[in-house]
Amino acid sequence: MIVGTEWLIEATNCNAALLRDESVLRELFGSIITDLELKVLGEVWHKFPGEGGVTGLVALSESHLACHTYPEFGTATFNLYCCRTRAAWGWEESLKAKLEAKTVSVMKIERGDPHLGSRISNFKSEISDQRSQAAGGDG
Amino acid sequence: MIVGTEWLIEATNCNAALLRDESVLRELFGSIITDLELKVLGEVWHKFPGEGGVTGLVALSESHLACHTYPEFGTATFNLYCCRTRAAWGWEESLKAKLEAKTVSVMKIERGDPHLGSRISNFKSEISDQRSQAAGGDG
Repeated sequence: MIVGTEWLIEATNCNAALLRDESVLRELFGSIITDLELKVLGEVWHKFPGEGGVTGLVALSESHLACHTYPEFGTATFNLYCCRTRAAWGWEESLKAKLEAKTVSVMKIERGDPHLGSRISNFKSEISDQRSQAAGGDG
Repeated sequence: MIVGTEWLIEATNCNAALLRDESVLRELFGSIITDLELKVLGEVWHKFPGEGGVTGLVALSESHLACHTYPEFGTATFNLYCCRTRAAWGWEESLKAKLEAKTVSVMKIERGDPHLGSRISNFKSEISDQRSQAAGGDG
């Protein structure tokens, strides 16, 4: 039984100063919440000291939204978990605009699938097996 | 640059009454946090009314821990995101014992990989392409 959809987003080569600015991340979360009509139940924000990044976690009626930023690597990661159907949000355009990210990766996973773990962890070995079989067929 | 490891866990065919019991989930989180020596920065818990489930979000110095339960489907999902190396936790044994789960799936993802999204979303098409190639080789 699929109980929700989770998006895992990796934004890389971002502007480090923006990744240290909690207000930038809060504003970004505000846009996501407004655009997708999400309802906030509670939240935790933490700015790590000095040159450190920001952690934001928001509990939603529809599940949760999280971010962690790593200014030292120019990277930010996000999770958006929704138990109800939602349109895809414009992660790529938004993170390029708001965090000056050069690359944005968006991965979508259906949660609640009892075979999720084995399917993905078998990914590399299956590819490898099939390459061997294909090579065998060619030979 | 890999910035952290995330485990996505699906526990299915659980005891629905346990999935409605916030104290059971809080105790489970307590075990994880103690066993893995994690440090809590803040948390949000929410019990949905009546027959509804529980949402728990804990911000950690090491990133975050989240759960959502769906008593109506006998399912609970968990995310544990750690930016520092941690031993794998005994999800399968623990969720079978604490939530009476019949099946537990654990998926591990390295966060911060700029190609993560395209790699996984191409998973099915790559498998399919390689099957076609293998079939072509056999013919």
